[in-house]
Amino acid sequence: MPSLPTAALSSSSSLSLLPPSSYSSPRKTQLRFFLSYSLPRFTNPTYSYRTPITCSATPIEKETVVSERPHSFLRQTDGLDDGSVRSRFQRMIMDVQDSVCGALEALDGAGNFKEDAWTRPGGGGGISRVLQDGHVFEKAGVNISVVYGVMPPEAYRAAKGAVTDQNPGPVPFFAAGISSVLHPKNPFAPTMHFNYRYFETDAPKDSPGAPRQWWFGGGTDLTPSYIFEEDIKHFHSIQKRACDKFDPSFYPRFKKWCDDYFYIKHRGERRGLGGIFFDDLNDYDQEMLLSFATECANSVVPAYVPIVEKRKDTPFNERHKAWQQLRRGRYVEFNLVYDRGTTFGLKTGGRIESILVSLPLTARWEYDHKPEEGSEEWKLLDACINPKEWI
Amino acid sequence: MPSLPTAALSSSSSLSLLPPSSYSSPRKTQLRFFLSYSLPRFTNPTYSYRTPITCSATPIEKETVVSERPHSFLRQTDGLDDGSVRSRFQRMIMDVQDSVCGALEALDGAGNFKEDAWTRPGGGGGISRVLQDGHVFEKAGVNISVVYGVMPPEAYRAAKGAVTDQNPGPVPFFAAGISSVLHPKNPFAPTMHFNYRYFETDAPKDSPGAPRQWWFGGGTDLTPSYIFEEDIKHFHSIQKRACDKFDPSFYPRFKKWCDDYFYIKHRGERRGLGGIFFDDLNDYDQEMLLSFATECANSVVPAYVPIVEKRKDTPFNERHKAWQQLRRGRYVEFNLVYDRGTTFGLKTGGRIESILVSLPLTARWEYDHKPEEGSEEWKLLDACINPKEWI
Repeated sequence: MPSLPTAALSSSSSLSLLPPSSYSSPRKTQLRFFLSYSLPRFTNPTYSYRTPITCSATPIEKETVVSERPHSFLRQTDGLDDGSVRSRFQRMIMDVQDSVCGALEALDGAGNFKEDAWTRPGGGGGISRVLQDGHVFEKAGVNISVVYGVMPPEAYRAAKGAVTDQNPGPVPFFAAGISSVLHPKNPFAPTMHFNYRYFETDAPKDSPGAPRQWWFGGGTDLTPSYIFEEDIKHFHSIQKRACDKFDPSFYPRFKKWCDDYFYIKHRGERRGLGGIFFDDLNDYDQEMLLSFATECANSVVPAYVPIVEKRKDTPFNERHKAWQQLRRGRYVEFNLVYDRGTTFGLKTGGRIESILVSLPLTARWEYDHKPEEGSEEWKLLDACINPKEWI
Repeated sequence: MPSLPTAALSSSSSLSLLPPSSYSSPRKTQLRFFLSYSLPRFTNPTYSYRTPITCSATPIEKETVVSERPHSFLRQTDGLDDGSVRSRFQRMIMDVQDSVCGALEALDGAGNFKEDAWTRPGGGGGISRVLQDGHVFEKAGVNISVVYGVMPPEAYRAAKGAVTDQNPGPVPFFAAGISSVLHPKNPFAPTMHFNYRYFETDAPKDSPGAPRQWWFGGGTDLTPSYIFEEDIKHFHSIQKRACDKFDPSFYPRFKKWCDDYFYIKHRGERRGLGGIFFDDLNDYDQEMLLSFATECANSVVPAYVPIVEKRKDTPFNERHKAWQQLRRGRYVEFNLVYDRGTTFGLKTGGRIESILVSLPLTARWEYDHKPEEGSEEWKLLDACINPKEWI
C-alpha cells in the first residue's frame, strides 16, 4: 500500500484552521489514483460517507514552536520574495490574516488574538491566532500554514499512466493556505468560515521532465442560527461580486458546490446557508486564479463584519441561545464526521489544537428536538434542508 | 465490492444506544474477510484510525414507530418464549432496561423517561428511553434493540475459505443488545456507559450444513471529570466481582480491553477511567456467557447508583462545571470519531436520534486548555493518559 503524503492542503474547510500537515490531499485528473488512497470526492452530496485512508498514514513531521513569527515559511531554495506564485500566495494569506484579525479585534472591542507560531525542520510552518471569550466572539480562529510534503510514488505512476514497476521516486509538493472559523456569542450573529489554499507539485526525483501541477481551492460560507434575509443576501452578494469580476459562471457553480459540500448526510441537512466553495481549480490562467483567490479572501471582512456589527447587541432570550447551541452541535457533527481537513488532520497527527479550534466554545444536543413548524427556528432548518437562491 | 449487512450488532459502545440497525458488525475468525470490509479491530489502541466502509453500505430497513411497546421483537418463526438463547437474551435486556430506568428515575427524583418504540417490517425493532434535563441527570438514555440482518455472500465465501465464484446466498443473522449513556449534571458525579449484546448467524441459504455462529460482547465503563478514589475503586470492584464469578482471567483481560478501546488517538488519552469491555466472546460455554452478560448488566445499578447518590448534591463552582464540559467535549470526539457503533450507525442511516442520544446535552471546546500541573483536573487527565490499576 502506498504511504500518504506527509501533508497536503485541505480541500475544505472549517478546520483548516490547521497546520497544513493536517490538510487533505490535492488531486487533479492525473492524480486520481493517488486520491483513491486518500480522500473522497465531495462534489456530490450523496457521496458523503467517508472513504478514508485504508493505507497507513505517514505521521507528519513534528512542529517546533517559535517565539517570533518568521517573515516567511518558504524554503531558502524557493527564494523568499522572488515573485513566484507560492511566494505571492504566502504573502497574500499573511496579509489577509493580519487584516481579518485586525477587523475582528476592532469589532470585538475587548478580546485579543493569541498567537502561536511554529516551523517544521524540512520547511514550512504556520501561525494560529485565536480570540476566545471576547465581548462579541465566543471563539474566533484565523490560521495560516505552509507545507512541504511528499506524494507517494504510486500516485505519480498513476498520473503518468505507466504500467511499469519502476519507481520514479516520491513527488514533492508545496501547499499553503489560510483558514478561519468565527463563532460569535449572540445567536442572531452568524458563524462564518473561510479557507483559501494553493497547491503545487514539483517534478519527481529521477523524472526531470515531468509536468508541474498547480491548483487553487477555497471558499467562504455562513452559518446563522436565525435568518435575516438582508444579511444572507448581503453575504451572498459580496461573494457573487468577487466571483463576477472573474467569470460569470463562478458564483452559480461555486454556490452549488458549497451547498453540496457542507452536507450533514446523517441529518439530511446542510450545516448552514452556504456561500462559495471550489477546489481543483487550474483550468484558467494561473495569474487570474491568484487574483481571484485574493479577491475572495479580501471579501471576507466586507461580507461578514457589517452583519455582526448589526446583530451583536440584539437582545435574545434562553430559547434563542439554546437553538444557537443546537446548531453549534450540528457544526461539531459536520466537522468531526465529514470535514475532509479535520478527519485527515486527526488521522495524520497534525497540531490538534489548531485542527479543532474550528469547534465552537459550547454546543448542545437535545434528544429528538424538532422546531415548531413555521417558527423562526423551523425556517432556518428548512433552508438548511432545502438550499435556496438568495440573490 | 460486497455490500454491507443491513444491520449488525455494535461491538462497542456509547451510541449503541441505538437501534441495532446502526450497530457495527460482528466478527470471528471465520468472518475476518467480511470484517475487513466493515469495521476495524479495536483491541489495539494504535489502530484507532477509522478504516471504514469502502463499499456501499446497504441502507437499513426503515423503522415504524409503534405507540405501544411490543412484548417481543422476535420473529414469530423464532418462537416467542421458547427458551432459545436469543429469546432469553431479549428478555434479559428488556428486564435490565426496566430495572435501570426505574433505579435512575428514583435517583433523579424529578425527571421521567420518555419512551419511543419501533419495529421493522422484516422483524426486530427497539425501544429508546431518554430522561433529559432532570434534577440529577442532564441526559440519560437506555436503549434496547433487536435486528434481523443479512451478511453479504462474500463474507460467507471467505468464512468457508472457498475460492469458487458460486454464490452461496446471503448469510442471515440475529443481533440484540442494550446500550446506555448516563450524563449527570453535577461535575463530581461521573458519566457512565454500558452495552451488552448477543449475535447469531443462521445457516446461509442453499448451504444447509453451514455452521451456526454466536457470540457475546459488551462492557461497562466510567467517565468522571474528577477522581474520588473510593468511587473508582467501588466501580471497578463491582465489575471485578461480576467477572470473578465466572473466570478469574476475565477482569484483568476485559479491564485492559476497555482501556484500549476507549482511546482518543488524536489526544493520546482515554475518554475516561475504564471498566470492562469484551467482544467476540464464544470460546466458553454459551449458557455460561449468557449468565455472565446477565450478571454484568445486573451489576450496572449497584456499580453506579451509589456513586451518583453520594455526589449529586456536592457543591461546585464554575471552574468545576467548565472542566466537566471540556471532558464532555472529549466524549463527543470519541463517539463521533472513533466509536464503531456510532460511526457505523451514521453511515447506514439508523435512527439518528437514538444513535446520537449518547452525546451529552452540553459540551465545550477551549483552545489549548491545559490544566495546571498537580491540580485535580490534571490528575484526571493524567489517569486518562496513563491508565491505572484501581483495585
